[in-house]
Amino acid sequence: MTLVLSNDEVSGLLAMPECIEVLEQVYSELARGLCLSRTTSECMAPSKRPDAVYALKSMDGVIPSLGVGSVRINSDLLTAPSEGGRMRRVKVPAAPNNRYVGLVFLFSSETGEPLAIFPDGVVQRFRVGATNALGAKYLARDDSSSVAILGSGWQAETQLTGVCTVRSIDTVRCYSPNRERREAFAARMSRQLDMAVTAVDAPEQAVAGADIVLCASNALDPIFFAPWVEPGMHLSSIKRPEIEPKALRRVDRLVVHTHDKGSTVLTTADLQDPEKAAGKGRAAAEEIDFQTLPCLADLVSGGTAGRRSDEEVTCLVNHMGLGLQFAAVGAVVYRKAKAKGIGHDLPTDWFTEKEHP
Amino acid sequence: MTLVLSNDEVSGLLAMPECIEVLEQVYSELARGLCLSRTTSECMAPSKRPDAVYALKSMDGVIPSLGVGSVRINSDLLTAPSEGGRMRRVKVPAAPNNRYVGLVFLFSSETGEPLAIFPDGVVQRFRVGATNALGAKYLARDDSSSVAILGSGWQAETQLTGVCTVRSIDTVRCYSPNRERREAFAARMSRQLDMAVTAVDAPEQAVAGADIVLCASNALDPIFFAPWVEPGMHLSSIKRPEIEPKALRRVDRLVVHTHDKGSTVLTTADLQDPEKAAGKGRAAAEEIDFQTLPCLADLVSGGTAGRRSDEEVTCLVNHMGLGLQFAAVGAVVYRKAKAKGIGHDLPTDWFTEKEHP
Repeated sequence: MTLVLSNDEVSGLLAMPECIEVLEQVYSELARGLCLSRTTSECMAPSKRPDAVYALKSMDGVIPSLGVGSVRINSDLLTAPSEGGRMRRVKVPAAPNNRYVGLVFLFSSETGEPLAIFPDGVVQRFRVGATNALGAKYLARDDSSSVAILGSGWQAETQLTGVCTVRSIDTVRCYSPNRERREAFAARMSRQLDMAVTAVDAPEQAVAGADIVLCASNALDPIFFAPWVEPGMHLSSIKRPEIEPKALRRVDRLVVHTHDKGSTVLTTADLQDPEKAAGKGRAAAEEIDFQTLPCLADLVSGGTAGRRSDEEVTCLVNHMGLGLQFAAVGAVVYRKAKAKGIGHDLPTDWFTEKEHP
Repeated sequence: MTLVLSNDEVSGLLAMPECIEVLEQVYSELARGLCLSRTTSECMAPSKRPDAVYALKSMDGVIPSLGVGSVRINSDLLTAPSEGGRMRRVKVPAAPNNRYVGLVFLFSSETGEPLAIFPDGVVQRFRVGATNALGAKYLARDDSSSVAILGSGWQAETQLTGVCTVRSIDTVRCYSPNRERREAFAARMSRQLDMAVTAVDAPEQAVAGADIVLCASNALDPIFFAPWVEPGMHLSSIKRPEIEPKALRRVDRLVVHTHDKGSTVLTTADLQDPEKAAGKGRAAAEEIDFQTLPCLADLVSGGTAGRRSDEEVTCLVNHMGLGLQFAAVGAVVYRKAKAKGIGHDLPTDWFTEKEHP
């Protein structure tokens, strides 16, 4: 049977510690070339909505040790509005019932069969949270206890949960441009983590004195600046433009998520890549050559050293995703769903064929 | 609703003329940059079967004029046995009930929603058949009446149907190494096309005097050779190595399917690409630089001339697939399935999400 799971079901199954654990194993295998990712690609074309473009994104991964391969697909209508003077890339829930379209297809690398199909929303956040948690595990000071988080949106929750899994955190300050949203986030996370998460009115207030700074925004422009860097800090970013290049240059131990060259963006002749059109984000971050920096797989496998002193400033820039993250976390989802008998079972024959393809 | 279709259902819906028609439109748009393909990628890794590797292949396409995007995925166990001294790439039906795994996911480029999911087996052959039929339409002599087909396997049927759609064919000779298979093919196609399709004992017998030669094999080595080239012939190939470079050099008007750089093959550190390991096929064909040749989109759009005289030798080498072929033919399948009320309807909400991905 092929399992169809909902985000609610995936959410009920996944826990942060096991996501961190499986990704730690997988990054270690990645360093030895034992698993694979196919870099994200994005095909962009006009839609009939004058304010939106259609983007079909996909990324693949295969992890033989877990017996899985996966393809993650996003089929999005994208707009690029400006908020508070900052450009954002915003997905429009244009599918029926105002829904988004992001899917993970999990296959067996032993038989080829489709094991499961589930939306990517929950898995997507867990894999980013767990990835940056691994960065903090290897780079943040052991005695880190305070966190500043810049952002209160889709990614912020798992960023915070992730770092609280690998360090004993007791203080969290959150800033994001929208007061209502940051206060709601602080209230929700206070309950969830059973600690004081405080919303503050300026990013400087959040950041000053924090042991760990988590950038967790969807900004296309920098949100963390050089003067805010303090000795011993660990910085963490989930998008390339979040930390300004000047700030990155003040980091003693800068690690990037991956050496993959970055997503391939293809556009029709009558369309410009909206991010490129927005211009600033990518150009700014390109001042630093990420290819020459160590990557997370090096760090996890011991190929590059982690933090060496309490004074060092460390940073993980998680500038792009990897297909194998979905294979890894997907394998955990599938194993647990099968064990608990959760999800819709569809006949596997519906998704396989007698005919040679 | 999201439609799940079987190969039988797709087969009952598709007809060659409309596949040729939709692809003719799409290649014309491709020449103007109005639609997109993301080149095939393949992630290969060891499986637990010592004789097989796991390959996860994907390719994407977006066609705004048809309102669709598609991702085609193959999740295969591959072996590379040798038959009659020739290396073949053979997929093993390792999924439950001895089945293969090839899937097309069709999305709306207007809403992003998943419109349909169906196996790729039938569509895959129709799109290759229709593509090479377009080659014959623009390159073969108008009065072509005899066809030689080298191959009797998965692709041969639609290769023959395709060319019979664009030219008035009355004679067909088929050769393939296995007598039983070529005779069965000849018998089946005689009935289907209502004309004499004859199986012959040697490729030379098939080819001599033919107006059109269709290579329709899965060989990794050449199966058509330079001495067989005759004035006025149109050659057609569905795999890069089928026509030996010496024969290609005797072609007056050589057109390739696409200028895409070719599939990206990624392998784990402990695995060699089996095709590269086999060596010969690719290396041989690389003697001719396909990038400098006109492509099918040029031909269909009038950017490059078709055949200019009855004596010219013409050739289309369909050396690799394009994601947008699946979007194009998939759009036809979907439109007809909806009109006829065919397929399993699944709730679209199962494949979409409220959560921002």
